[in-house]
Formats: sequence, structure tokens, C-alpha cells
Amino acid sequence: MLTGKVLVAQGGGPTAVINQSLVGAVMEARKFSGVEHVYGSLHGISGIVNEDFLDLTQETTANLELVGNTPCSALGSTRDKPNVKYCQEIFKVLKAHEIGTFFYIGGNDSSDALKILSAMAEKENYPLTGIHIPKTIDNDLPVNDHTPGFPSAARFVASAFAGINQDNMALQGVYVGVVMGRHAGFLTAAAAGARTFGGDAPHLIYLPERAFDMNSFVKDVKKVYDKHGRCVIAVSEGIHDKKGTPIITKLSKTVEKDAHGNIQLSGTGALADLLTDAIKKKTGISRVRGDTFGYLQRSFLGCVSDIDAIEARQVGEKAAQFANFSNAKSGTVTIHRVGDYAVEYKLSKLDAVAGLTKVMADGFINKDANGVTSKFMDYLNPLLGADMPKVGRLDASNRVKKILNK
Amino acid sequence: MLTGKVLVAQGGGPTAVINQSLVGAVMEARKFSGVEHVYGSLHGISGIVNEDFLDLTQETTANLELVGNTPCSALGSTRDKPNVKYCQEIFKVLKAHEIGTFFYIGGNDSSDALKILSAMAEKENYPLTGIHIPKTIDNDLPVNDHTPGFPSAARFVASAFAGINQDNMALQGVYVGVVMGRHAGFLTAAAAGARTFGGDAPHLIYLPERAFDMNSFVKDVKKVYDKHGRCVIAVSEGIHDKKGTPIITKLSKTVEKDAHGNIQLSGTGALADLLTDAIKKKTGISRVRGDTFGYLQRSFLGCVSDIDAIEARQVGEKAAQFANFSNAKSGTVTIHRVGDYAVEYKLSKLDAVAGLTKVMADGFINKDANGVTSKFMDYLNPLLGADMPKVGRLDASNRVKKILNK
Repeated sequence: MLTGKVLVAQGGGPTAVINQSLVGAVMEARKFSGVEHVYGSLHGISGIVNEDFLDLTQETTANLELVGNTPCSALGSTRDKPNVKYCQEIFKVLKAHEIGTFFYIGGNDSSDALKILSAMAEKENYPLTGIHIPKTIDNDLPVNDHTPGFPSAARFVASAFAGINQDNMALQGVYVGVVMGRHAGFLTAAAAGARTFGGDAPHLIYLPERAFDMNSFVKDVKKVYDKHGRCVIAVSEGIHDKKGTPIITKLSKTVEKDAHGNIQLSGTGALADLLTDAIKKKTGISRVRGDTFGYLQRSFLGCVSDIDAIEARQVGEKAAQFANFSNAKSGTVTIHRVGDYAVEYKLSKLDAVAGLTKVMADGFINKDANGVTSKFMDYLNPLLGADMPKVGRLDASNRVKKILNK
Repeated sequence: MLTGKVLVAQGGGPTAVINQSLVGAVMEARKFSGVEHVYGSLHGISGIVNEDFLDLTQETTANLELVGNTPCSALGSTRDKPNVKYCQEIFKVLKAHEIGTFFYIGGNDSSDALKILSAMAEKENYPLTGIHIPKTIDNDLPVNDHTPGFPSAARFVASAFAGINQDNMALQGVYVGVVMGRHAGFLTAAAAGARTFGGDAPHLIYLPERAFDMNSFVKDVKKVYDKHGRCVIAVSEGIHDKKGTPIITKLSKTVEKDAHGNIQLSGTGALADLLTDAIKKKTGISRVRGDTFGYLQRSFLGCVSDIDAIEARQVGEKAAQFANFSNAKSGTVTIHRVGDYAVEYKLSKLDAVAGLTKVMADGFINKDANGVTSKFMDYLNPLLGADMPKVGRLDASNRVKKILNK
């Protein structure tokens, strides 16, 4: 039964639809008569420690709907990765406020925090229901067919490359687009969703699931350029060499690390510049451009997959329903694909996702390690949304006969 | 009278709606019974010299509509800046194919080419009507209130900063977004269209119309950060010091120049990295991120201002109508704002725009040279489109009383 005080928080990197999950959980929880208050913690678990709560029971439905359509954690987020001591502080606050249910919207680190907390509550015999609501543009949570936030980010990447493809046809040359993704290449692979006509970009895709070799890379680019007179490449920011050393560290002298000990990959154009320089020097092609998609791909206003918005809302709603109707004290809402295309939601064990990472299946990556398979396209296409814009091309067969240069 | 053979070409950098102008000119020209063929030149004026023409009279209306909704020059583009000899080659081909009307869609360089050609035709008494159809995301054509392509690019920049604003509130720090614009700051200034609530980003805007000083910049950033605990900055790629030296050249040893002798500013993340490094070193703020919006801002699929799409279509249509109904042998279609908000189209003299550049009016830039005025917002807002997405925010006044940390 969902009763008393309910707490919701958002953790990790923002997504375009993370507030749909917030709004889904809040609005559904408010429907149960036993629920007194739904609190929202500001800036994830750090807000719990500081007791920085908003009473979301006093929010209007109209405003919640507006917030649902707004990208990036409306409650604020945190990169804090809690250890046992941190969780003890959280637990102290949950007890003081008599919070019986905690919904944490986040990736694998967030589910890990929930796991520690749930174990703590069980040990002390405190009645806490802790439910993890999945989100991550990286799409790297196990068990889930895909995670809310990924489809919209994938749509951004596909839309960007669809535009870049047109741009690169109009003014030919080589283009490198660097996409987010440290260990999992799903988002970079989504660039393939840009293709409509034969010969469309991206022509090459490099993922962190395969070792990156600069010589093979330059050779691949040269081959495509010789064939098409142009070449568009999607590269994951997390590409690394055979030894696992990120390519970006080959350039930077100073390396910034976050609270999780991860090397800072985003928020710098260094990798794109490194790759475009290599292409210029080794192939002699003069017009070589590079962009790093950066924070736009996870936050851009107005680029949302309709499928993603619906599913993100639903995982929030399901969390409240599972908290009320199931007997589980903890769990994670998971998305399972059925038919073509539909999904079902289940409450899975936190252990199945907590701290774990899923990467691209071998069957999704081509043999040459520079592209994706049709199996991946079958996986990706429905996620981009039913209203993904279409592109057209003039009929090249209507050529006019030359008079002077026959 | 619009009769015989009509030629259309697209020049310069692509925009999101440049094909609306192409389709507008083609479809309108095809309505006049005296028109035999409408040709499209591939890759601008270079396609004329090579007689690379498509017969657009053999295109279906449905496909033209699809092409109209597709970003970036469907005919391909060129950066060639023709001199008199180049124009003689063009003229030879126009005569050989008996082309009596030439529509050139482009920026100030394209209107310049048309000016040379028109003078050449007049001198040889060849019946050529040359009409320039405006486009440029830089919005730097004189006479025009604004130019097709700018509103959609402005919407992209505003949408990006609206998302970045949310992202930066969720995970606080400093963010620098580098926007296209060599001499004119309109597109960078459009970042201000991202603001909804008080304190919203961008907090600072730096334009090429004002000299950039690194010390003032860092001081500005520190001041905003101390007040808001975060700071989002929009910077034009064309910022330069008092002497006019681009800031980007302070970093790069090797400088790439294009056919027009311009230093290559886009397609590299160098400026954003330079600025974020300076902030980190001089303020001690640790979380400082930078993105360069790059080619996405002019080509992204699906980010179009409805106003822009309509106007871009109309300047194309008007070109065909002016060619038929006016007696002018040459001219440029110009956009004039009337009322609030509507536009009128005129046929202006090529001289008024050819090779000239408009920059932001003094009244659009604030005194501190780090932001825009409300007068600029009045100018910008209608251009972003009627369906610009809205953002919401949770009600911060519903704070829950602290129990432990009173």
C-alpha cells in the first residue's frame, strides 16, 4: 500500500524526458487516498541529507504537465555517489520525516544508492519501499530493452546527422561528429537513424565497444571519400585503444576526473579536433570539420520522441502502482519490448541493474567495427518516434544535356 | 514577362529553409505559361560553368514539397567567389542555353555575383533578368528586416540555450556555448530567446560588434557565478580584441583560410576550450564546460520556425512574380517588417545589398557589452515562431520545514 509520505528524487545526467517520469510518479502517487504528501528532494540524494524538500502535493496539475514537457531534472540533480556513511545520513532524514516510500529516478548509480538504502532499512526493520525509475541517454541499464531518455537523445543525434548529411552533400568534405557515450555506443550508433537514401551519412560509426585504431580509421575515411567525394563520421567520445586508454587522453595533458573517478569526456572539443587534424595530415583532404555535440544532445528543448515521452511518463506511473499493489519492498521498473512495437513494464530486482552496465550486443555492430547492422536498425527505428521528420531529394535523373562541355 | 528558360542556383552556407525558397521560385515560375523550363544548377555558380543542370520542370509537386521541408541546399552549394573572368564563363553558358532569367539564392556574396553578371548582360545587350533571393543565418544583409534562415537558426540557438539553462540548473557550474557569427552577432544574441523565468540563462552574451577583453569577461563570469551559483554564457565565434584580432587566433598556430580569405572559425572546438580554460584558471571554479554549436545550428533536421518557413517560401515566389510583373532587369527581394508582426516584400536594387554587411544596431546591445536590450527581444521574439516550446518550473515556495537541520 502506498501511504503516508512519499519522496521523489532525480539523479545523474539530465534527459529530455526525465520530468515525465517525475510527473508520472507524483500524479499517480497523489491519486492514492492514503498518501499524505509527495515530497521532491532538490538535487537528488544531496537534497535528502540537507532536507531540501519541495511539497509536490501543492503543485497544480497544469504546472506539473508543463514541467513534464520541460527537459532536464526539474528537481535538480547530483553526481554524488553515496557510500554507506552517506546513506546513513540519508536514512536519518527519511526516518525523521517518516518517509515510507522513496522513488529515485536515475541510472545505474542511482539504483545502487537505492540498494544500499533498502538493505539498511531492512536491517533496522524500518518500513521503506524504495523503487528505482530508470533513465539514461546512454541506454546502458541491463534487463531493460532500452531506457527512457535514450530515444529522445537518439532522435537528436539522428536529426543532427540527417542535417549534417544534407550540409555535407551541399558543401562536400569530411565531417566528424563526436557523440556522448563512455562505455556504451548506443547513442553514437543512433546516428544511423539519419539515413534515408543510399549513400546517406553517417558513412562510418566508431563505438567504445571496439578498440579504435587511428590507422584503420584514416584508411576507412580515405576509402569513403574516394568513393563519395565526401565522408561523414559518427564517433563516440569514449573510443579507446586496444589497451583501453581513451583516445582523448592522447591529446590532453591535464585530465579532469568526476566524483566517480571517470575522466571528463564532454564539455570539450578536444577529441573532434584531434581526429580532424589526423585526417587532414594523413589524407591531405583540405575541408575537414568536426563538431562535439556536447550537452545539446541531452537537454535540447523541443527534440522529443513521442514514444519516449509516453514511456518515461509510464515508468513513473508504474513505480507508484508497483509501490501500492506489489508486496516488494524494493525494485526497479524495467521496460520490455513485445511485438513490433509495444512495451510491457515489470518490477525487477535492484540487483539486476544496480551498478551494472549494458553495452551494444555483438549482433548490433558490423564486422569491420565501423558501422551498425540491420538488426540494430530494427531495434532503433521505432524508438525515434512516429513523427520523425522526413527528408527529400531532387530527382538526379532529370539532367539537362550539356551544350558547351559535351 | 517570365518566359523561356529560367535558372535557379543556391550559394553559400546552407540554412534550414533555403529549399523553401528554391521550391517557391520553381513552383511559382512553373505557373507562368511562357516558361519552358526551370533549370537548377548543381553547386551554385560552379554548376553553371560546368553546365551541371537538373530540369526541375520534371519534378513532381509532392517531391518539391518534401524537398522544401528538407534543410540545406538541395541543389548543392559552393563557396566560389566569382571574379569578372569567372562571370564571363557563366555568361557564356547562360547564352548557350538561352537562359533569360537567373534566380540566385544566397547571401551578400551571391548578390555580388549577380551584380557583375547583370552588368555584363546589359553591356552585351543580352536579355537577362537576375534576381537575388536572400538567405543567411548570419542575418547580415542590409535593407532586410531579417533574412530567411536566420529565424530557424535563432530558434535552434534559443532552444539549445533553453535546454542548457535547465541542465545547468540541475547540475550547477559554468557553461560556454560558442555560436556562429563572424561579424554580425544576431545569431549569438538569439540565445536570449531562451529565457522564461528571472535568472534564466544565458546570463552573459558576447558579440563581435564589441571588442572582447578577457579580463572583463572573467570578471563578468565570476560576478554572475557568485550571485546565481552558476553561469551560462553565449559567445560569438567572431569575437575579437580591440585591434580586431579574432580571439581564436590567440590559440591556434595554424590558421585555415577559405576562398574568401576568411579565417576558419567553425568546425573546431578551440575557442570554447580556450575560454573554459581561462575561466577555470582565473576563477578557480571547477565545473566549467564548453560546447561549440558548429554545423548543427544551420542544418539540424526538424528545428524550423514556422514564420521562417513561410517567409523563405514567399521570397522565392516573389522572385518569380517580380521577374514577371516588374520591368526591372535585376534586383534583390527584400523583407520589410510592418505592424506587429507582419512583413512586406519589395524588389530592391542589388547595389543596396551586394557585398555589404549589416551588424547589430547599437540599440540592440547593452551598455556593458555583455548582453542585449529589450528592444532586441521585441525584434527577435516573433521570429522564433508561434509554436516555440514552453518550459515549466516547480513552485519553489512549497518548501517543506526542516526537522534535523533547523
